[in-house]
Amino acid sequence: MRIDGREPFELRPIKFQRGFSRYAEGSVLVEWGNTKVLCTASVEDKVPPFMRGTGKGWISAEYSMLPRSTHQRTQRDISKGKPNGRGTEIQRLIGRSLRAAVDMTRLGEKTIWIDCDVLQADGGTRTASISGGFVALFDALRWMVSCSMIEKIPVRTQIGAVSAGKVCGMPMLDLCYEEDSSADVDANIIMTSEGEFVELQGTGEGGVFSRSELDEILSLGWKGICEIHRMQAEALEMTEAEKALFLR
Amino acid sequence: MRIDGREPFELRPIKFQRGFSRYAEGSVLVEWGNTKVLCTASVEDKVPPFMRGTGKGWISAEYSMLPRSTHQRTQRDISKGKPNGRGTEIQRLIGRSLRAAVDMTRLGEKTIWIDCDVLQADGGTRTASISGGFVALFDALRWMVSCSMIEKIPVRTQIGAVSAGKVCGMPMLDLCYEEDSSADVDANIIMTSEGEFVELQGTGEGGVFSRSELDEILSLGWKGICEIHRMQAEALEMTEAEKALFLR
Amino acid sequence: MRIDGREPFELRPIKFQRGFSRYAEGSVLVEWGNTKVLCTASVEDKVPPFMRGTGKGWISAEYSMLPRSTHQRTQRDISKGKPNGRGTEIQRLIGRSLRAAVDMTRLGEKTIWIDCDVLQADGGTRTASISGGFVALFDALRWMVSCSMIEKIPVRTQIGAVSAGKVCGMPMLDLCYEEDSSADVDANIIMTSEGEFVELQGTGEGGVFSRSELDEILSLGWKGICEIHRMQAEALEMTEAEKALFLR
Amino acid sequence: MRIDGREPFELRPIKFQRGFSRYAEGSVLVEWGNTKVLCTASVEDKVPPFMRGTGKGWISAEYSMLPRSTHQRTQRDISKGKPNGRGTEIQRLIGRSLRAAVDMTRLGEKTIWIDCDVLQADGGTRTASISGGFVALFDALRWMVSCSMIEKIPVRTQIGAVSAGKVCGMPMLDLCYEEDSSADVDANIIMTSEGEFVELQGTGEGGVFSRSELDEILSLGWKGICEIHRMQAEALEMTEAEKALFLR
Amino acid sequence: MRIDGREPFELRPIKFQRGFSRYAEGSVLVEWGNTKVLCTASVEDKVPPFMRGTGKGWISAEYSMLPRSTHQRTQRDISKGKPNGRGTEIQRLIGRSLRAAVDMTRLGEKTIWIDCDVLQADGGTRTASISGGFVALFDALRWMVSCSMIEKIPVRTQIGAVSAGKVCGMPMLDLCYEEDSSADVDANIIMTSEGEFVELQGTGEGGVFSRSELDEILSLGWKGICEIHRMQAEALEMTEAEKALFLR
Amino acid sequence: MRIDGREPFELRPIKFQRGFSRYAEGSVLVEWGNTKVLCTASVEDKVPPFMRGTGKGWISAEYSMLPRSTHQRTQRDISKGKPNGRGTEIQRLIGRSLRAAVDMTRLGEKTIWIDCDVLQADGGTRTASISGGFVALFDALRWMVSCSMIEKIPVRTQIGAVSAGKVCGMPMLDLCYEEDSSADVDANIIMTSEGEFVELQGTGEGGVFSRSELDEILSLGWKGICEIHRMQAEALEMTEAEKALFLR
Repeated sequence: MRIDGREPFELRPIKFQRGFSRYAEGSVLVEWGNTKVLCTASVEDKVPPFMRGTGKGWISAEYSMLPRSTHQRTQRDISKGKPNGRGTEIQRLIGRSLRAAVDMTRLGEKTIWIDCDVLQADGGTRTASISGGFVALFDALRWMVSCSMIEKIPVRTQIGAVSAGKVCGMPMLDLCYEEDSSADVDANIIMTSEGEFVELQGTGEGGVFSRSELDEILSLGWKGICEIHRMQAEALEMTEAEKALFLR
Repeated sequence: MRIDGREPFELRPIKFQRGFSRYAEGSVLVEWGNTKVLCTASVEDKVPPFMRGTGKGWISAEYSMLPRSTHQRTQRDISKGKPNGRGTEIQRLIGRSLRAAVDMTRLGEKTIWIDCDVLQADGGTRTASISGGFVALFDALRWMVSCSMIEKIPVRTQIGAVSAGKVCGMPMLDLCYEEDSSADVDANIIMTSEGEFVELQGTGEGGVFSRSELDEILSLGWKGICEIHRMQAEALEMTEAEKALFLR
Repeated sequence: MRIDGREPFELRPIKFQRGFSRYAEGSVLVEWGNTKVLCTASVEDKVPPFMRGTGKGWISAEYSMLPRSTHQRTQRDISKGKPNGRGTEIQRLIGRSLRAAVDMTRLGEKTIWIDCDVLQADGGTRTASISGGFVALFDALRWMVSCSMIEKIPVRTQIGAVSAGKVCGMPMLDLCYEEDSSADVDANIIMTSEGEFVELQGTGEGGVFSRSELDEILSLGWKGICEIHRMQAEALEMTEAEKALFLR
Repeated sequence: MRIDGREPFELRPIKFQRGFSRYAEGSVLVEWGNTKVLCTASVEDKVPPFMRGTGKGWISAEYSMLPRSTHQRTQRDISKGKPNGRGTEIQRLIGRSLRAAVDMTRLGEKTIWIDCDVLQADGGTRTASISGGFVALFDALRWMVSCSMIEKIPVRTQIGAVSAGKVCGMPMLDLCYEEDSSADVDANIIMTSEGEFVELQGTGEGGVFSRSELDEILSLGWKGICEIHRMQAEALEMTEAEKALFLR
Repeated sequence: MRIDGREPFELRPIKFQRGFSRYAEGSVLVEWGNTKVLCTASVEDKVPPFMRGTGKGWISAEYSMLPRSTHQRTQRDISKGKPNGRGTEIQRLIGRSLRAAVDMTRLGEKTIWIDCDVLQADGGTRTASISGGFVALFDALRWMVSCSMIEKIPVRTQIGAVSAGKVCGMPMLDLCYEEDSSADVDANIIMTSEGEFVELQGTGEGGVFSRSELDEILSLGWKGICEIHRMQAEALEMTEAEKALFLR
Repeated sequence: MRIDGREPFELRPIKFQRGFSRYAEGSVLVEWGNTKVLCTASVEDKVPPFMRGTGKGWISAEYSMLPRSTHQRTQRDISKGKPNGRGTEIQRLIGRSLRAAVDMTRLGEKTIWIDCDVLQADGGTRTASISGGFVALFDALRWMVSCSMIEKIPVRTQIGAVSAGKVCGMPMLDLCYEEDSSADVDANIIMTSEGEFVELQGTGEGGVFSRSELDEILSLGWKGICEIHRMQAEALEMTEAEKALFLR
């Protein structure tokens, strides 16, 4: 029995509240159990130096936790004078995952900034950020189409992310903070709607895991991601034309 | 006629949503027109070095804007590598204002951190932070009483804050971003429930203002603060005993 | 009776020693009681990014204290690795105050840097910086005229600044460090020669103040600023033509 | 056919030169094809703040590339003023991987610092760092035993790491820089001598990969890691008693 | 003929104005031609970590230039976010030179901070800082004696510093900025009153110099330092007992 | 008798292993007794801002020690958040010394970066860096000639560096760490093949030294530098034409 009464293969209640931010080109407040992440997508009319002149666009993600999103207050990065290592690792993962969804050659020399700010953290903030980041990104791309900055939405695939792991010897989907803290194995799985991997990170959390344990976890993850894809599509109120983008 | 149809002496709709954060000892989401600020109060069991051994407590405020709380995305402090000057000025003001409310000698050697994170900015973020910060602080002090860390709430006075100014020659209460941008005079007024000033900052915004203009603005401000005090008390569901704290 | 024998409405002895720096376009060593501030004005042939292409100029102030300008040695900002919060707040105030004096549209795309370095601090360093900064700025503008960079001095008004407050229940002008440390109220008042406010900052210093106390303090402040304006004009050896700049 | 003539399942020539550093408690220069990483292990007689008083030890890794370890010179972190994001991600991976090998409760309150400095980079620097880091760590633990700081080597398992991926549709083991640059999938696999995973990171590098592709890659990885474990053991000239540490 | 009419072996006019700072334990404003450096000595009741528990004291120097001490305004270190390389080099030289003068074992666990802030720079700021730093240090040591912190002044020798070089093929003492800018050789010479070297730094400034050129320069330097020692002693109004400190 | 059995005038065994780095335009691993420094020279197709438009080139040096190059592990600069003062001083010396060797007007608007990374430190790292830096620089210039970026090698003179000092009253050449730690005098001497000084830095290391001691040390230094020049030329396998560059 899980701490919050869920079945092993059960996601926490997930809500994507689009349009939370009045100014951003795309935005969503993700509530995922007790985890709350505000994801915004901002379109900027230039690319980083290493992309200039290529005609291609870029997607850059930033991830940060509010000081009291956690059980104990944590100091802000700027007070410590340096970026947080864990946050750096996570924002790089978000960026890579979302870039996999978009055809940069059709974006023009624009940067889309995905800001993921954790208002409350109860485990799974990185997968909530990726799943919500996709929603905000999609809305920003719609906005670009509506402004005639691009002709059509240059998305190749839908991206969903979830964690899965093994706690007290039992495979579980979507770990909350307490489960995560005592997990034997913890994996973050990022997949397309076709069931292919975009990123996969598994860690023994101080222990180790076998290939068959990995298999179980990946199966659980795929199950969860299917649901997340469905919830994203619903929240985005996707048209048939939009859904067809993902058919290859 | 004001841009959003308000009377000159009229506040925007204000909502204090207490308990927004699950972990903080006190927290409130302030919605003040289109301005949204999340204020949390965190109790820490030590004081800054300059207060050690004095037996007294401390209140420290931090203020930050999410990158896309504004019309244009702004870079995070940590990406620029240095704190934002405006933010530094504002968090010092929040800290001074709230410290004025509390008798530090009765707090014990604790720090209360007030974190004000702007989710959306439409003018008046510093006064929303102070007004909301007071609510979060009050809840944190109640929590300390409930934990027997202190015997009674060591608050001397209620603190409310509002902006007032002169736009196109007309005195106005509670400027929104567009009014603020074109204001001739802009003042931030922080007052007790007894009608005394805690802090007062008036600026000609590139122009100047006369003493009689100041008088008009202060009168408007006092009017607004009375309403804010009432809304804070209501949101806090203050008992008669708590209200009596402020009677001197 | 005040600690240094002054009357409540009496300024400390003030001296503006112009031309202290050989290289700066304008410079003044302000000796204000035991407070000593070196103000220099430097003309730079460009503006900050946010002003480029506007045809307008900019004035930027920086404020810093030498490590041993104070009773106890304080660490340099660069040793701590971050700017000092109080200094940031003060330099923003100096900048805003002096920008109010100048018509930026007539300055061309130049920046005038006002550097205020406190050699010795005995209270009132920010008002000494603003009052001295005006003198240095004026000399730099004269230099610009003499170089034909601008046609005439684009100053709209004379700017003077002073502190006033209430110490042990008594209103006092121009607080020295010891008075400031025990003040009930402390205000920094920045005014034009026409008696209008440019900036006004009052703080209860952990306490509160009433509107009538504010009135008393503002009256004292105005009295002091009149004298400061006179001393600035004298130090600047203003011609009648220059004085006429301020008549509107 | 691979760029350097290797078979798909073939590792580059690997050499562990132990004792490269005269002062470190453990050290090894790893030459892995054209990749050269200097790994040192330093024993420090204290633990980070969050571990104090637990009686347990800690392993902390740092990873950095010399400016001209790469095709183009890269700026040092200290010149840019902030840590490199990729380096941060890598050093966190090294630390987690090696901590999985050691029973911290038997280490005492010591920190072992694993410094991985890349002298030359031709792909696979993170897996070379982990594989070499294990060797340096093992020697440092032997030194601790020889100093009677610990009774026996508290290692639970041998740790080896390798990359594997898919380049031009073909699964390949141990990608060099040029292969890595054009890979469709790239995985870093860290495993014990029992064939269990410690960490697993797979990325679509802007594309995606299927579960069967993952399976192929993991099989290749396991093959490579077996050889690496053998080379580590040989380089370490492990006694039978030491080898027995890993039997469970 | 030199640019300012001096003879090759002639120092610029030098003035040591002691007691410039009201709060510092020792202070002097050095005016050395157009170079002006404010040197303060501050006594702190602790030593840096690496000296704790040794019973010995320490002397630490910091050197900085005001932004407009130079022909062109230079940015402050804190605005650039990192210490200035040249300043770092200079303050290390000042520290080493002054530490050579003092018997640290007789100082107790105190740090004396020597702050050298350049108000105006016209060449020779490092030698003016060392020469003035010695005066400020001596006064701080007298203050320590007067407070009974130490029994007698633990100074082993008087320290003076001067630059000398070769400009347009001619050996010259005490280069001003313009001479320094076009010098073939430039040396900074720091010597005791017994004519021994404490530090010596010679640089070809992009060229080279022969041993006989070095000899000429050192002879000029020694001549200058004799005068500086005399001026320091005079400024310090040294008693016979104090002068006797330096006789060995 | 010296600690490692050398004669007072004897260098440690020195080896210049050219081409250590596969990618750098010039590189050398210097082994100098137990000191090991990796020097690389990187050609960059631009100059620093202050040189732009001059048509001249620039040489910039960076010096850093690996964390465990020393007896005790030292923290990385980036972890401390600021550059190391000693390192800053040393890299400035390396840069000045090597710039003296090259005619910048014949280099074109290129920067040559000399990176000196200390793999193991046993005294004399700065002179090893300069001596090795010259070798790497020379190879990079040859590469530039081979690429037709320049017509001929614009080197004016060969640069060698060595330390010499007085330990326990005895003059010694090329101090190792233990000698350096107990030296009365320590000098770093940088000279051309014609026997002229490029830079000279002597320090009393807390004591003082006389002119005749300086003379002894300089004579020892010259002797050592002659051998270093010979070893550099040999390592570089200089052609007669190249040797002729240095004849003037």
